[in-house]
Amino acid sequence: MSDGDVLYSPIDLWHNSFPITNINIIMKIFLKSTLLTLVSLLILSATLVAQQPARPGAPAQRPAFRMPARIVSPEILPDNKVIFRLYSKDAAKVTISGEWQSGFGASETLARNDTGLFSITIGPLKPELYSYTFTIDGVRAIDPGNVQVRRDGLNYQSYFIIPGAESDLYVQKNGVPHGTVSKVWYTSSVLETDRRVYVYTPASYGTVKQKYPVLYLFHGAGGDEDAWTNMGRAAQIMDNLIAQGKTKPMIVVMTNGNANQAGAQNDVPPLASQGEQGMAAYAKYAGKFEEHLVKDVVPFIEKNYRTLKGKDNRAIAGLSMGGGHTQTITNNNPGMFSYIGVFSMGIMNFGMQSDEAAKMDQEREVKIEALKNSGYKLYWIAVGKDDFVYQSVVTLRNLLDKHNFKYIYRESTGGHTWTNWRIYLSEFTPMLFK
Amino acid sequence: MSDGDVLYSPIDLWHNSFPITNINIIMKIFLKSTLLTLVSLLILSATLVAQQPARPGAPAQRPAFRMPARIVSPEILPDNKVIFRLYSKDAAKVTISGEWQSGFGASETLARNDTGLFSITIGPLKPELYSYTFTIDGVRAIDPGNVQVRRDGLNYQSYFIIPGAESDLYVQKNGVPHGTVSKVWYTSSVLETDRRVYVYTPASYGTVKQKYPVLYLFHGAGGDEDAWTNMGRAAQIMDNLIAQGKTKPMIVVMTNGNANQAGAQNDVPPLASQGEQGMAAYAKYAGKFEEHLVKDVVPFIEKNYRTLKGKDNRAIAGLSMGGGHTQTITNNNPGMFSYIGVFSMGIMNFGMQSDEAAKMDQEREVKIEALKNSGYKLYWIAVGKDDFVYQSVVTLRNLLDKHNFKYIYRESTGGHTWTNWRIYLSEFTPMLFK
Repeated sequence: MSDGDVLYSPIDLWHNSFPITNINIIMKIFLKSTLLTLVSLLILSATLVAQQPARPGAPAQRPAFRMPARIVSPEILPDNKVIFRLYSKDAAKVTISGEWQSGFGASETLARNDTGLFSITIGPLKPELYSYTFTIDGVRAIDPGNVQVRRDGLNYQSYFIIPGAESDLYVQKNGVPHGTVSKVWYTSSVLETDRRVYVYTPASYGTVKQKYPVLYLFHGAGGDEDAWTNMGRAAQIMDNLIAQGKTKPMIVVMTNGNANQAGAQNDVPPLASQGEQGMAAYAKYAGKFEEHLVKDVVPFIEKNYRTLKGKDNRAIAGLSMGGGHTQTITNNNPGMFSYIGVFSMGIMNFGMQSDEAAKMDQEREVKIEALKNSGYKLYWIAVGKDDFVYQSVVTLRNLLDKHNFKYIYRESTGGHTWTNWRIYLSEFTPMLFK
Repeated sequence: MSDGDVLYSPIDLWHNSFPITNINIIMKIFLKSTLLTLVSLLILSATLVAQQPARPGAPAQRPAFRMPARIVSPEILPDNKVIFRLYSKDAAKVTISGEWQSGFGASETLARNDTGLFSITIGPLKPELYSYTFTIDGVRAIDPGNVQVRRDGLNYQSYFIIPGAESDLYVQKNGVPHGTVSKVWYTSSVLETDRRVYVYTPASYGTVKQKYPVLYLFHGAGGDEDAWTNMGRAAQIMDNLIAQGKTKPMIVVMTNGNANQAGAQNDVPPLASQGEQGMAAYAKYAGKFEEHLVKDVVPFIEKNYRTLKGKDNRAIAGLSMGGGHTQTITNNNPGMFSYIGVFSMGIMNFGMQSDEAAKMDQEREVKIEALKNSGYKLYWIAVGKDDFVYQSVVTLRNLLDKHNFKYIYRESTGGHTWTNWRIYLSEFTPMLFK
């Protein structure tokens, strides 16, 4: 399929509008059918429309009768090049920013043909999940041709997967048993509100009436309880690893790491306490998330799910801010979690020499010693060579080394990215509960 | 807040990039703090960023220190007027299309000020949930300033709620007990695939170990298992009605009504069978969804959830195509569901007089008679005066009248819209299981 073949009349399904103009045509097709209700027509219409959209790798096909079509974007070619397309007869400039580009704020410009079809071919790309956005005359936008959209905090991005070994765990596969992702509400006595947590239960949970170990998994700053399943493909990674026998079936608990939120801001209205600004809000909540995790979340999960109890059946991990949460919680609660993962976060040292800083360092050393003696089984630290928190991880490792604290250090390429965090999750979970 | 006060430097959070430039400023603030990890900074940054975004009704506030801000859009004013804003120094024309407008393809044009801030004030609007999109130089886009986004099939829309009596059930409320929404996979022997279903269990399900009645709730053409919770606010409606004591606690089961899909196309890859075109795919699946609902879905739910059994504990309802599904299932299975809701769908009669059509009509009459004698408790039909399927509902009512089949008819204003379907759900569920 070349660009010239693209049907680029934008379809308008606004407000559930039905393509009435096609009814007469469809009626003739169905005239001798026994299926006479409009239901049939709606099904057919939906089917034909559904066959047109951007489905990576699926070429556009002309339907049996003329129907407005959607732009096919992105189109993944056999050699892993990717064509992006956008139709606008009025736009002057369209650029694309995507995760395959390097450098902050990088973008590429789409070429416009004489009908108003903008397109660009990039790659070939290595197998991975890539997000991207268009910028249309200065406004960042998702690709209207691509139904695959994810939310990164306040921002929406289109994405696609280049299939292959490196991205295989991220693909939602027909035929692989899928766990359940539930949006569950619990009461936090510490934070004095009901809060939302995502709970992944493995596919076998519904049928095998055994008890399961639990991984508590934290997102980073700007994220929320939706981040690990949305940005991090946690459900697909767990489904696929469990199906391959590499990871033990476990429950994964992903709660909102922002102490001042009840839930993700796209779904859940802000708490009254969120009205407090800057330092006031910060002071109010310092350490509270970590405290509530231990006092509220773990008891809630262990009461309401078929869980194995004790430290050897509890794992904890988090990225960035969540890696800080993980350190704080495990330092403060030795003997509670035997499997600990710190992704892309260490100990920040701004060179301060105040008494308070020294006291905090001292307290941390005492806690590390206690954690060392608690009988944990795994302390796994991962960071990318290019991560801006890299030095903080060196500081953490130096502290642990000083105490002969055993840990596994995994240094990857790349920086502070979801690409790395997906990889870390897929490497960390096979080591748990074994 | 006037337009002139808007901070319109677009913030760039692309790729989880961290506003490094602020670290030095934040460091000074924290210099005497005991909280020395970067975690603190990330939390603070996230908090400050989070305080800036478009939160309907929340005015933008200048943070304690200078930080890039997001455009506030939409801003709901005390008199229920709404200001939309979009920043682009390059766009020539920006229009907005929203559910408050009437007429197919209606739009309004935003005004540009001399800095590139486009804005428009609309309303006042009556309390309701409204979706909208911008069109930026010919390209439809969500509002980059608004984190509230919903998906209507292939299309993404921004939305907001004007608070008030008419929209009160649609608001996710802090303090109201929230049910759990789970994305569950089940095996369909009829459709020969694993499929995804959304299951709402009421807030009490986790704590009150009783059995619950079940509502099977269907979406329309173009929708999927995500539609009733996403477009239809089903979780909020059920939470709020149950909290008010108006609706009995029940399980709500929302599966994918497209027989050729395993799940929503934004999350779940297409089945191989979806490659079949038009009539072939249609013929293969005719009636299969309805059959699988009875043979696969109901048994799965009744086995895996604490359900009350028997027809008096089963309700079924759907909109548009799902109203057709509801009719087919209840016609074919008298005595299975005592509570039946048909939203925005009747019987289509294209004036065909073929033998097959006559035979089908005749069979339907036999089935209606059997359903009448099955001891159902409620048959509720709802449609809008302006709905394009209105006449089909007249046909259905005439058929039911002919058989002295008791039903309740609810005629609303408006057309074939989610606005109506939310209202219908909020009116239908209080009548169930009583």
